[in-house]
Amino acid sequence: MTYSLYYSPGAASMAVHWMLIEMAIPFEAQLIDIDAGAQRTDEYRRLNPSGRVPTLIVDGVARGESASLLMLLAERHPAAALAPAPGSSDRAEWLELMIYLANTLLPAMRDWFYAGVDGDLAGADAIRALARKRIEEAWNRLDKHLADGRVYFVGGMLGTVDFLAVMLMRWSRNMARPATTWQHLLPYIERLRGLPSFIEVNAREGLTDWSNSAHSTNGNV
Amino acid sequence: MTYSLYYSPGAASMAVHWMLIEMAIPFEAQLIDIDAGAQRTDEYRRLNPSGRVPTLIVDGVARGESASLLMLLAERHPAAALAPAPGSSDRAEWLELMIYLANTLLPAMRDWFYAGVDGDLAGADAIRALARKRIEEAWNRLDKHLADGRVYFVGGMLGTVDFLAVMLMRWSRNMARPATTWQHLLPYIERLRGLPSFIEVNAREGLTDWSNSAHSTNGNV
Repeated sequence: MTYSLYYSPGAASMAVHWMLIEMAIPFEAQLIDIDAGAQRTDEYRRLNPSGRVPTLIVDGVARGESASLLMLLAERHPAAALAPAPGSSDRAEWLELMIYLANTLLPAMRDWFYAGVDGDLAGADAIRALARKRIEEAWNRLDKHLADGRVYFVGGMLGTVDFLAVMLMRWSRNMARPATTWQHLLPYIERLRGLPSFIEVNAREGLTDWSNSAHSTNGNV
Repeated sequence: MTYSLYYSPGAASMAVHWMLIEMAIPFEAQLIDIDAGAQRTDEYRRLNPSGRVPTLIVDGVARGESASLLMLLAERHPAAALAPAPGSSDRAEWLELMIYLANTLLPAMRDWFYAGVDGDLAGADAIRALARKRIEEAWNRLDKHLADGRVYFVGGMLGTVDFLAVMLMRWSRNMARPATTWQHLLPYIERLRGLPSFIEVNAREGLTDWSNSAHSTNGNV
């Protein structure tokens, strides 16, 4: 059975979209344009009650949460080797980093972008200030993780942590200190942005503003 | 090789401590009293750079993040059956709920308790207001999940989602609307609090204020 992905360009669905392309397995992609409010229709709410992307239809059931979907896809397609195998020595580090990204960076990014939507507009500045502090602390930690020159985050191979981390790093591109300004994150980002599957997911989602070739114009790097 | 758990009473380590007791496997427990600042010593920071609990020593390596440790322990001890087996039909729901708790409730609880420590004291009220809203939205969602009368969150069996969820529900006990005031959460909580392993982890951590027998005095239920 094939997968159906509901995505919005550059949103939290991007990591899942990228991984599906990297795995080269059949899937359908359905655009839910968040900027146009398409996530608030009754039809989409039936699939995803909180009105967020991604939704992935797996065995006929609608599933959410990007980090969870990446882990599920890795487990269902072990031949793609996009996560350390259960029982392998890299497994603990993989799980720890997936959860760290999901419970630290992802909610801080939500606060950064949606403080005034999720909460009171009057309190948005305080929420964004804390979010920015947490995001920059996370770049410090991830930068340290890559300081030994490793090519990918875990186990010397491309995997779910990379899809999730790079998507989150992309979201920082218009912040005062984007992830690309960290010493060890920059070469990592440039390497990952050069992958054919990353170039392809950008093309399919119509994104042009955070690529290696956009260097000279986007001012981020 | 045995596990070593660094814990503080009632903190984010409690779910891991509870699971280790439920699994009835050998482990050592080391008290890191957060209220006394024991997490800020150089010795502990070497194990856990962010100075949080839990830390679990796994194969000689210090690992953090409670949700990640629960998933790792379930995977390393499949005979305990505390998570749906890989490839089983409940696996997607299990992963989705683990990530949901980790990226929604856990960070909102962090904001609720530490808004003025992690961020500016002046902004703490705004951060706490949003945290409370998110926490209550999460109880709504989890209450709906249990509305069909199920005994445990996933697959009809006790598992990692329950350890994490009940720990988080306990943290709400002094909030204006504790989890125990939700219709379907209350009987679930009372059932889980009656488990011998939950009673045992409370005894070992010296906790007395959120048990079924404390009903008449704690005012929460």
